Amino acid sequence: MPFSGFASLKAAHERLLKRRNRVDRSFHNGIYQRFAHPVVTREHLPLEWRYDLDPASNPRGLERLGIGGTYNSGAIELDGRVLLVVRVEGVDRKSFFAVAESKNGIDGFRFWDQPVVMPETARPDTNVYDMRLTRHQDGWIYGLFCSERPDPKARAGDLSAAEAQCGIARTRDLRTWERLADLRTPSPQQRNVVLHPEFVDGKYLLYTRPQDGFIDAGSGGGIGWGLCDDMAQAVVKKEQVFERRAYHTIKEVKNGQGAPPIRTRQGWLHVGHGVRGCAAGLRYTAYAFMTALDEPWKVIAAPGGHLIAPLGAERLGDVSNVVFINGMVARKDGELLLYYASSDTRQHVARTSVETLVDYCLNTPPDAGRSAACVQQRLELIARNRAYLGKKGGRRK
Amino acid sequence: MPFSGFASLKAAHERLLKRRNRVDRSFHNGIYQRFAHPVVTREHLPLEWRYDLDPASNPRGLERLGIGGTYNSGAIELDGRVLLVVRVEGVDRKSFFAVAESKNGIDGFRFWDQPVVMPETARPDTNVYDMRLTRHQDGWIYGLFCSERPDPKARAGDLSAAEAQCGIARTRDLRTWERLADLRTPSPQQRNVVLHPEFVDGKYLLYTRPQDGFIDAGSGGGIGWGLCDDMAQAVVKKEQVFERRAYHTIKEVKNGQGAPPIRTRQGWLHVGHGVRGCAAGLRYTAYAFMTALDEPWKVIAAPGGHLIAPLGAERLGDVSNVVFINGMVARKDGELLLYYASSDTRQHVARTSVETLVDYCLNTPPDAGRSAACVQQRLELIARNRAYLGKKGGRRK
Repeated sequence: MPFSGFASLKAAHERLLKRRNRVDRSFHNGIYQRFAHPVVTREHLPLEWRYDLDPASNPRGLERLGIGGTYNSGAIELDGRVLLVVRVEGVDRKSFFAVAESKNGIDGFRFWDQPVVMPETARPDTNVYDMRLTRHQDGWIYGLFCSERPDPKARAGDLSAAEAQCGIARTRDLRTWERLADLRTPSPQQRNVVLHPEFVDGKYLLYTRPQDGFIDAGSGGGIGWGLCDDMAQAVVKKEQVFERRAYHTIKEVKNGQGAPPIRTRQGWLHVGHGVRGCAAGLRYTAYAFMTALDEPWKVIAAPGGHLIAPLGAERLGDVSNVVFINGMVARKDGELLLYYASSDTRQHVARTSVETLVDYCLNTPPDAGRSAACVQQRLELIARNRAYLGKKGGRRK
Repeated sequence: MPFSGFASLKAAHERLLKRRNRVDRSFHNGIYQRFAHPVVTREHLPLEWRYDLDPASNPRGLERLGIGGTYNSGAIELDGRVLLVVRVEGVDRKSFFAVAESKNGIDGFRFWDQPVVMPETARPDTNVYDMRLTRHQDGWIYGLFCSERPDPKARAGDLSAAEAQCGIARTRDLRTWERLADLRTPSPQQRNVVLHPEFVDGKYLLYTRPQDGFIDAGSGGGIGWGLCDDMAQAVVKKEQVFERRAYHTIKEVKNGQGAPPIRTRQGWLHVGHGVRGCAAGLRYTAYAFMTALDEPWKVIAAPGGHLIAPLGAERLGDVSNVVFINGMVARKDGELLLYYASSDTRQHVARTSVETLVDYCLNTPPDAGRSAACVQQRLELIARNRAYLGKKGGRRK
């Protein structure tokens, strides 16, 4: 394969970065809009992060550091721009963080000049991923993420056993990061830890995902919460599960907090992920719920079922059948951007408004728990519609 | 459904066989080219292998012996033609071997007149699959493949327990096959055994995949090697693991040798498969490495990450999320054809050159082991590129 230089690759890359995104009109639920294209893919990564561009050392133009996927991004608005802290995964399966920036949050995402250099603790991370960004009342922007290391207690020969903990870092600008001590909780492992944006009784509130069977044996686990005095040496002494997983729901196997919740007049607006098992493995969907303003651990609205499930091409990827949200941005005009990733491969956005999602949470019937009760919900909806259509028809006469 | 005869089916089949294959320009990594179409699919199978063509006995034109997939092919060049020994799987899940032939190895593959009739040993095989073809110095072409039989030690009611062994056959022409005794090794089971093409100290060298925990308990297993005096009664007395699986890599759960390695000036060029677990089950990717010419069990180059992972439609199949290579052909002009199958369903080809793949092996950084070290690799690449581009910019003035 004679190599004719990077000009055509560069041109194709620039076309991709400039590609406009359009609403996908083939999808409608009134709750949010999908778009024609993902917002960040592995093809968005700058060429100079992947190829050695020097023909002297790379005469054949080979990719030297390949990329597997770009997904599960934390999100924040800063200086009027939407910034994603993308989980970028090399072909070697190691993830790292990189910031991509867009004006409208819908298209035009470009990576900053180089990946995030995340300091380590005394115990080096094998893999870091899935950052949640919280702009806290204390003035810092916190990034909480999962740090995995080999499980020191793994039985011999089991190379897949990992220990997951919550890594913590803080920043003002997403450029310089101060790594803090990993979170300590009563649970031996943690994933999907999210920092609440406001103090509660002068303390930091953390959403956790206690390891099943440790905190609340027999209860089935779920999303927990706990308070913490100091983020520089974060310790949660008491974890309580408040958003439980449940039999034959979209969160039967496990669930976790997604992005930091958003304050609304009616309560805190949350997104989470729910996981169930099926013959093809696990299926991850995103769901929404609301908690009380004064008690962010008290669920006040729990619409039944998923909010976003993988659809069409989203179903397929390095780990298929997954939608995952760990970032959302509420813009000043009320627009709400949900950054959902599909199948551990690419980053999408769904557009709605805070008001719309609150409406969805407050007015979508809760999970009725069993088929016959769900039929009753649907019969009531049909009956109300018939009554409305009859009345409307009557008025027309 | 009135049946109007096989004429239109035959015409469609002939169009498929004559379809030209083109490079898929939407994919670029400089290392290899993908093509628009798979090279062998179940639709390539001759109609007379599937249908009873006689309207007297098949007036409705039903398929009598359906085909599930065509994949995991051994490959060899013979008399200037590329021959694949395809794993053909009937709808009954039993695989058999059939030879497909092409002039350029990229398109135009046609099956020979009938499937391979593989003799059996005294212990009949339930299923045979994944042949590795080696043209050995001794003058024979060997086909090593997996033979599965029900596990005599399975507990009652467990119908999935199988015993896997390495079946061995030899041929001069891929038409007439002499079945030899199954390989015996210290490991109770074997899969992915490959014969090295040259003698080492007058002995046959075999790559094996010892069962985890048997040979090298606690080491995590991997690809082994051993020597053998006689292929007619093949015994490997001592197996040593030289290419290990490793935590949080693409070969975390298991790995195996792919095709027989290819001799290059710089060393033996190998492809293997690496397997990791994920929420959607196992994920199989192909990777490359090189070993020393005089000691083919000594790894001298181990580029980090996968070489080929399933992409787009390749991700989907009877067993999704799989790329598997057990055949490659180095042609006289230096062209190297990697026959990768996707998702236990169809056979593809990737085109590169021996020189390019050696460049890839020698100049791709090894797996750095953890996120922060991988970021350092990428920062160094970026810095070199900036320096080069700065110099280039300077020269332009």
